[in-house]
Amino acid sequence: MPILVMKFGGTSVADLDRIANAAEKVKREVERGYDVIVIVSAMSGKTNELVRWVNETSPFYDAREYDAVVSSGENVTAGLMALRLQEMGVSARSWQGWQVPINTTSAHGAARFESIPRENIDAKFAEGFKVAVVAGFQGLSPEGRITTLGRGGSDTTAVAFAAAFEAERCDIYTDVDGIYTTDPRITSKARKLDRISFEEMLELASLGAKVLQTRSVELAMRYKVRLRVLSSFDETDETSGTIVCDEEEIMESKVVSGVAHSRDEAKITLFTIEDRPGIAAAIFGPLADAGVNVDMIVQNISEKDYDDDHPGAVTDMTFSCPVDQVARAKKAMEEAKAGGKINYEELIIDTDVSKVSVVGIGMRSHAGVAAKMFQALSADNINIKVIATSEIKISVLIDRRYMELAVQTLHDAFGLDRAS
Amino acid sequence: MPILVMKFGGTSVADLDRIANAAEKVKREVERGYDVIVIVSAMSGKTNELVRWVNETSPFYDAREYDAVVSSGENVTAGLMALRLQEMGVSARSWQGWQVPINTTSAHGAARFESIPRENIDAKFAEGFKVAVVAGFQGLSPEGRITTLGRGGSDTTAVAFAAAFEAERCDIYTDVDGIYTTDPRITSKARKLDRISFEEMLELASLGAKVLQTRSVELAMRYKVRLRVLSSFDETDETSGTIVCDEEEIMESKVVSGVAHSRDEAKITLFTIEDRPGIAAAIFGPLADAGVNVDMIVQNISEKDYDDDHPGAVTDMTFSCPVDQVARAKKAMEEAKAGGKINYEELIIDTDVSKVSVVGIGMRSHAGVAAKMFQALSADNINIKVIATSEIKISVLIDRRYMELAVQTLHDAFGLDRAS
Repeated sequence: MPILVMKFGGTSVADLDRIANAAEKVKREVERGYDVIVIVSAMSGKTNELVRWVNETSPFYDAREYDAVVSSGENVTAGLMALRLQEMGVSARSWQGWQVPINTTSAHGAARFESIPRENIDAKFAEGFKVAVVAGFQGLSPEGRITTLGRGGSDTTAVAFAAAFEAERCDIYTDVDGIYTTDPRITSKARKLDRISFEEMLELASLGAKVLQTRSVELAMRYKVRLRVLSSFDETDETSGTIVCDEEEIMESKVVSGVAHSRDEAKITLFTIEDRPGIAAAIFGPLADAGVNVDMIVQNISEKDYDDDHPGAVTDMTFSCPVDQVARAKKAMEEAKAGGKINYEELIIDTDVSKVSVVGIGMRSHAGVAAKMFQALSADNINIKVIATSEIKISVLIDRRYMELAVQTLHDAFGLDRAS
Repeated sequence: MPILVMKFGGTSVADLDRIANAAEKVKREVERGYDVIVIVSAMSGKTNELVRWVNETSPFYDAREYDAVVSSGENVTAGLMALRLQEMGVSARSWQGWQVPINTTSAHGAARFESIPRENIDAKFAEGFKVAVVAGFQGLSPEGRITTLGRGGSDTTAVAFAAAFEAERCDIYTDVDGIYTTDPRITSKARKLDRISFEEMLELASLGAKVLQTRSVELAMRYKVRLRVLSSFDETDETSGTIVCDEEEIMESKVVSGVAHSRDEAKITLFTIEDRPGIAAAIFGPLADAGVNVDMIVQNISEKDYDDDHPGAVTDMTFSCPVDQVARAKKAMEEAKAGGKINYEELIIDTDVSKVSVVGIGMRSHAGVAAKMFQALSADNINIKVIATSEIKISVLIDRRYMELAVQTLHDAFGLDRAS
């Protein structure tokens, strides 16, 4: 039998009715001839409740016990889903991480997969079971303790199972009906994509299109797992949703596939710092230690003198990070300065910026995307504060009040409202 | 290190404050020099919620999945208790059934212990851990599935661990402060017992003194585990509560230790049935199949003729069962009659009776207990409907409206308000 992996997130299994609704979708795939592995999250809100209890019990908790507590929500959903399927006449069995077993590292709270042996589940399929309902987000450490994979771990569980079981596809059921050219709340011209490449999806996910966890897309790309994103709440068929797949499967790609945005960014400039080898490490080491997720980095070329005691070249260093990490970033920089590790004249913090990016694998072979982007923004008098580029993405930081306008303008400029 | 087992029921761990309170009691025992095994129930209400979800999802549920779902409540409490202890500076680790492992039979929903190997937990004690917090009520089947032990299974888990680890004592923390000579709500003269024998406790538990599950007392008796019942909510010390122990440990026992009652009983009489070998089996077989818990059984000696077609001795058969099983019992008897298995002239059902019993190991060597009991009841004009006796117990069925009076009268008659 071909194997299909289906994953249902927390809102898709939020109560017994929704579990029943998800079970209907599973049943339909069984009827189409698949052996199905269903990955479930906890009922929405449950994991948060457990996390709150842990935090209230022990603010600096032992991650082993954290994992033992918070993994229980998925176990409940897995059992209920198996029962619901049985009730509908589909032979199903639930699986907790240790029963499969889902072998992971010992990094509690952020464990990584080591291996997912197929024997136990394959044996059940051979017995005639049609569905294995697996509790997502959890695994088993070499020490025999329960681990969790960190937030969004259920997507990653689904992809890992699809890889291990050589599934025909991994369907991620969620509360949106696919991947869009941009956020439909910003422009009604946003259009659902039939297909998107892993690379583009990665850029979109990490840029704030929060449909799929970055890690799950990385894993899917590495093992060439065909992903499909589709809605739990709509009627769905074989053509629903968006397929995330290898670039080669996408025949004629547009130059730009989508416009992403990230609203709450901050821009931090270290004004006038010594321009010497090692200065970047001296800045970004402490930031990493403080848990600041630095995104864009720009270093100005400068020839001005540092100060009388330090003759030689100086520069300015600018980076961006999420607004809610500014306080930590500021503290880290001030401590690094106080400790003599770095020196700067001034720390300039702008917390009113957003990031807008255009993404597309077609960019690789098309010049002029950047020029077209800058021109379009300029025509609307939107000032660009920072620019960063990768092979398939161009991002700019702009004033937050222009964010929606910029997204709409770029969506139009690259013709994303028209099917290719 | 001597080992102590401490068990906390659902009301004792109902919220984070109560878990903290229970953890304080554990810490105190660690400070007294014990390695402690803590058995926890689910936070009160949690298991009921899970059971409700299972029933709503699948009325005729697969017991394997039922067990997978309902066992999760204990896992949460075990993790939270371990975290709380760590927070108080006590090195603790949580254990789910499969991690110990608690090996049971495959009888899902009502599994029985097969073995509890000590290695894993002993190894942790050897590493310096002081407390193992074990999720009660659950185990692992030979097939690698989660089992549950049935309601009240956490008491049984505690006793099984005390036996396996040769614990000095098994302390059952609950919402009462010990075992009383009778229900304190019925007479203020009820007195807490310092000690009671296993045998007496068994009779009291099965007679409706619902402090300890019958099965846990049976297990404790078999393995000679010293039990102590005490309150989670009071300040407790080494002399608190009631010790349940071997008869030999109780120096000078009173003739009668307690008066038990069971309010909602029913009395069913099969009037005029054929008195022949096998008639009892023909009656009580169908009742057992229908899940009726028959308690007292009385057969009248009778010489009257059955009917013209069946010359020979006839009799009346009377039995008691809980009121809420009367409908089932009636149906089973009517079907047996319709099927020709038994015959009776009339089914007489009295749902307005209660059972009152006096219990005491001293009865064995003292004649006249029954006479004293009947005399006391007679003096209050309480009519006895059915009598049943065992080696250490005499029970009577009486009209329900006399139940409180009977308990008070017997408590006085046997001098239970005075310490021995």
